[in-house]
Amino acid sequence: MLALERPVPAIDTDDTCATSEADATASWWPSRFGADDQVGTLNEISPAAIVAAARLVRQGKVFDLGRVLDSSVPHFPGRFWQQTLVSNAHLNNSRRPEGTDSGWGRNEVNWLIELATGTFQIGTQLDGLNHLQIGDRFYNGYRACDIVEDWGTNKLGIETVPPILTRGVLVDVARYRGVARMNAGDVITVDELEAILRAQQTRVKAGDADIFHTGWGSLWENHELFNSGEPGIGMAVASWLVEHRVALTGADTWSYGAVPSEDPERPFLVPQTLNVKHGLFIMENLATEVIAEAGLTEFLFCLTHHKTRGSTGAVIAPAAVI
Amino acid sequence: MLALERPVPAIDTDDTCATSEADATASWWPSRFGADDQVGTLNEISPAAIVAAARLVRQGKVFDLGRVLDSSVPHFPGRFWQQTLVSNAHLNNSRRPEGTDSGWGRNEVNWLIELATGTFQIGTQLDGLNHLQIGDRFYNGYRACDIVEDWGTNKLGIETVPPILTRGVLVDVARYRGVARMNAGDVITVDELEAILRAQQTRVKAGDADIFHTGWGSLWENHELFNSGEPGIGMAVASWLVEHRVALTGADTWSYGAVPSEDPERPFLVPQTLNVKHGLFIMENLATEVIAEAGLTEFLFCLTHHKTRGSTGAVIAPAAVI
Amino acid sequence: MLALERPVPAIDTDDTCATSEADATASWWPSRFGADDQVGTLNEISPAAIVAAARLVRQGKVFDLGRVLDSSVPHFPGRFWQQTLVSNAHLNNSRRPEGTDSGWGRNEVNWLIELATGTFQIGTQLDGLNHLQIGDRFYNGYRACDIVEDWGTNKLGIETVPPILTRGVLVDVARYRGVARMNAGDVITVDELEAILRAQQTRVKAGDADIFHTGWGSLWENHELFNSGEPGIGMAVASWLVEHRVALTGADTWSYGAVPSEDPERPFLVPQTLNVKHGLFIMENLATEVIAEAGLTEFLFCLTHHKTRGSTGAVIAPAAVI
Amino acid sequence: MLALERPVPAIDTDDTCATSEADATASWWPSRFGADDQVGTLNEISPAAIVAAARLVRQGKVFDLGRVLDSSVPHFPGRFWQQTLVSNAHLNNSRRPEGTDSGWGRNEVNWLIELATGTFQIGTQLDGLNHLQIGDRFYNGYRACDIVEDWGTNKLGIETVPPILTRGVLVDVARYRGVARMNAGDVITVDELEAILRAQQTRVKAGDADIFHTGWGSLWENHELFNSGEPGIGMAVASWLVEHRVALTGADTWSYGAVPSEDPERPFLVPQTLNVKHGLFIMENLATEVIAEAGLTEFLFCLTHHKTRGSTGAVIAPAAVI
Repeated sequence: MLALERPVPAIDTDDTCATSEADATASWWPSRFGADDQVGTLNEISPAAIVAAARLVRQGKVFDLGRVLDSSVPHFPGRFWQQTLVSNAHLNNSRRPEGTDSGWGRNEVNWLIELATGTFQIGTQLDGLNHLQIGDRFYNGYRACDIVEDWGTNKLGIETVPPILTRGVLVDVARYRGVARMNAGDVITVDELEAILRAQQTRVKAGDADIFHTGWGSLWENHELFNSGEPGIGMAVASWLVEHRVALTGADTWSYGAVPSEDPERPFLVPQTLNVKHGLFIMENLATEVIAEAGLTEFLFCLTHHKTRGSTGAVIAPAAVI
Repeated sequence: MLALERPVPAIDTDDTCATSEADATASWWPSRFGADDQVGTLNEISPAAIVAAARLVRQGKVFDLGRVLDSSVPHFPGRFWQQTLVSNAHLNNSRRPEGTDSGWGRNEVNWLIELATGTFQIGTQLDGLNHLQIGDRFYNGYRACDIVEDWGTNKLGIETVPPILTRGVLVDVARYRGVARMNAGDVITVDELEAILRAQQTRVKAGDADIFHTGWGSLWENHELFNSGEPGIGMAVASWLVEHRVALTGADTWSYGAVPSEDPERPFLVPQTLNVKHGLFIMENLATEVIAEAGLTEFLFCLTHHKTRGSTGAVIAPAAVI
Repeated sequence: MLALERPVPAIDTDDTCATSEADATASWWPSRFGADDQVGTLNEISPAAIVAAARLVRQGKVFDLGRVLDSSVPHFPGRFWQQTLVSNAHLNNSRRPEGTDSGWGRNEVNWLIELATGTFQIGTQLDGLNHLQIGDRFYNGYRACDIVEDWGTNKLGIETVPPILTRGVLVDVARYRGVARMNAGDVITVDELEAILRAQQTRVKAGDADIFHTGWGSLWENHELFNSGEPGIGMAVASWLVEHRVALTGADTWSYGAVPSEDPERPFLVPQTLNVKHGLFIMENLATEVIAEAGLTEFLFCLTHHKTRGSTGAVIAPAAVI
Repeated sequence: MLALERPVPAIDTDDTCATSEADATASWWPSRFGADDQVGTLNEISPAAIVAAARLVRQGKVFDLGRVLDSSVPHFPGRFWQQTLVSNAHLNNSRRPEGTDSGWGRNEVNWLIELATGTFQIGTQLDGLNHLQIGDRFYNGYRACDIVEDWGTNKLGIETVPPILTRGVLVDVARYRGVARMNAGDVITVDELEAILRAQQTRVKAGDADIFHTGWGSLWENHELFNSGEPGIGMAVASWLVEHRVALTGADTWSYGAVPSEDPERPFLVPQTLNVKHGLFIMENLATEVIAEAGLTEFLFCLTHHKTRGSTGAVIAPAAVI
């Protein structure tokens, strides 16, 4: 904020927020990673895990788990994406010293840029721990009234998330069930998850990126059906992931966890619990079909993203590498 | 474009653009990667190179080469970044069925999102091959009048760039010169580059990501000085990088190549030549000091980015991993 | 532009633009209002005309000629409108000195704002004389390469347009033809125009705002049909308006003039000619049905608009007052 | 909202918002204009008042009370304005059927548009009755939790405000005090107001637009000083305006009412009280010096504005006409 924007007394961090009923009984903070921690389960990715993950690269093949983002993608109410090409330089480069009709300088340089405007909670995305709340509480007990600034949040923003390299594990539930696509509301069970892992001889370890393929992503072009619900894990698998100290998880669905919810009175309980109580990161709209079709089960998972200050998410395209 | 937007006859690809003087003598397309190629020197990254790069991961340490982006960063005229936090859900979740004062459902779920607006040619960035031109020609001879759509470009957009994993090489010129920071207009020579590589026993190979540390990034907070110019490579090193079939390059500067330019009548000739004639990708405003201080010379370079359709660049934060 | 944005040599106004074929034979500038004039036919509105127009107010009734703008309105390709409510103050006012759970200060003040993003060439609008061109020439011979800045144009921007008060005249062509709605491509003739004016005993005078009701606006909700074309005046009526020294004109259509065009090889010739050659202002998507239904023929026309620097248009809602 | 955006149960208007302490004792709603009223004191502008105001137009002179808006204007924290010129048509019109190098069709039509992004609570502005609150209550008792939608508010939005034509009265307090500019925190008294009105032989009537000139607008270019505070009316004059049934008011200051506030524990109490309790509309950053210098005291006040759905304000440039 500029020094000159003075009339309004500065916003400080005095503890003046209201506390809701939920707070009274809460016992899920401070986080086991420390009261000041902002990166949750990413702490589980040890140097040894990174080295081991890199060793999974034996063929030099890279798979792209991101979907292209434009104004036509399905989206949650209130979210949008617009981009406009900007070609002013084609017109005003001629006015620069050394400008000519064809560009600037004897090398006739010209350029295009674009102007993008939208919400980052759209397309293939990583949710920050400043996205979901229980009442007014985020991960580690942070409250909106403590961390909200006009430009984003001053804690837990997506810029606090480091580059992520770890072992990725694909759990192909659609294939296990013998379907191209699971149905909205279908709940993945612990028995299924364990059977799939046994079949592919994978033992989930601390720091893993566990990714679920449900086939729901095949509806991407059919907005109405795509948005009408989704298959996903339930609270039992959520607990399993926490117990196994997974670092992050994701699926080919617009949210994470079955919709309608197992408990219809508790919408989005799965991602809410993982994010808020456990600091476990979630990715949405992953193009899992790319690695499901190729039969990948374990791989080096890589994710680097735009570090925009205070954002609640990032538009991503992670890589699976073997 | 929506079907209903009918009144204007569709834009087709008939060849009706004007051709400038420059075109008559041009001989730099089709590209050696094919007349339809859109990813230029990224073709140089072979599976073997990826496997070899992954083997550089021996300690499990990850370094972040991205700078945080907010409205206060230095920028080129006409570019900007603005983000606004959006907390409507705090107010309207109470109106949903099962809504309460504290959120939606018995689990009191709430959320924050943000609205970002700006140009992607800002902060730590990867330039697409649809950014710079010679006259009206991009890489592989594409013309603006062929590929410009209202929403971006229909060829060469940043969504065509795959996830990048390859060997990274740091060339610490500031250290070689014994300075904390090179000066604006300083030109890195081939002799210097080769001496540095010899000293660190690195042989540059096809597909490498060659990254230059000039120390200029230490001026990041001082917009006026930072924007007043920059050190960088000249055309001789540019040719050297092309001959060595480097896949991408970058530096801790706002553009790439010395500014003022070696030839004052040819502004931005270095990045223009690399992008347009050779399809060689460039990154700007890399936080190279992070790996320079740690003494890295070779590493696994990882870059995954937002695949926004038709964009001329991406806001990035690549990782260097050892 | 900030002083610190230095690296790029300033853009000056040296005359280096290319000239197209069209320029060689052009004889329509300088404008009859002077070589530096930027407001064209608004010069025709004399103080006496304003006084006379004000005298038309005898009942104190105000009619609103604007349509509400939101993301759902029909639009030309590449144009859009998005608005997002912003309620951060509800969360961070509690952190100010004297902040409480319910707002800031003992008076518990809170506020909402919004973030709008879009193109002004949408909805009920006034086109600036920097919108349409013949080749690269605007009104008074200004060229894009002379006046384009990153933020808009440095001449002819909508901020140069003063508040407009003058006599408004409604020409209800649909009623004259005995139809609820004219058809796409229907061309209004001079005979018709003159017959309508005779019937309502109106003599068009210099400085008038002549507004045509075609009934096409009744398709506003039906985007596909609305955008598929429109009725409007042809070149003969355009010449008539120029000869009668009308100050501005408009209709209940998305552009102005029949679409398809009288001459299919000359799209948008009517508004192009009026804007560029004559500096005659045009309004689109007027809610003319409001005054057609009330039977207005003459009225005080009032238009004040957002003076955003360098814009090519304004989102408006003019008033007709009797 | 699109039909396809289904997953989230619709937001209804069940009364589930929390009620703050303030609500218990409130007695200021329903409004005297009716429980459903949305336009407050604009109801005071009678047809007779409009006719009388129009009769003030005797010279045909129009004065513009708006300031030009661009990214450089002073603003409150969290607010901004950005505009980018868009000239894509120059590049892709050549691709249309009948396109040529110089434009589209034999008439070589081309065009420019712009993309604007920002908050409407900036520059010369009219505040909607959905802007300020007491706790969670707006005018007529509406609550944010009742009317907030993702895109704006579903009641009290700026699109509900009709075109405004009424008598304007200038109260030149700076001149009365014999200063070019009043000081921050200076409070205009009822005695002063009445003395000024007596001196200029004006009797304030129901439906008037009462505009105060303080000279503070002369600091417009000096952001730091301009934003550091402002002179304005206090609660006594606010009550006087309510008693005299004024329709709207405004000044040449960034907010309305003295800052610092008369009661330092009650920031922005004057505009809050006028908007929320009385539905009295307020304009900010008026270019009052234009009419103060011309010596206007009574005039026809005209204001038509962009009717963007659900906005909390409008960027305006009202006219004073004599």
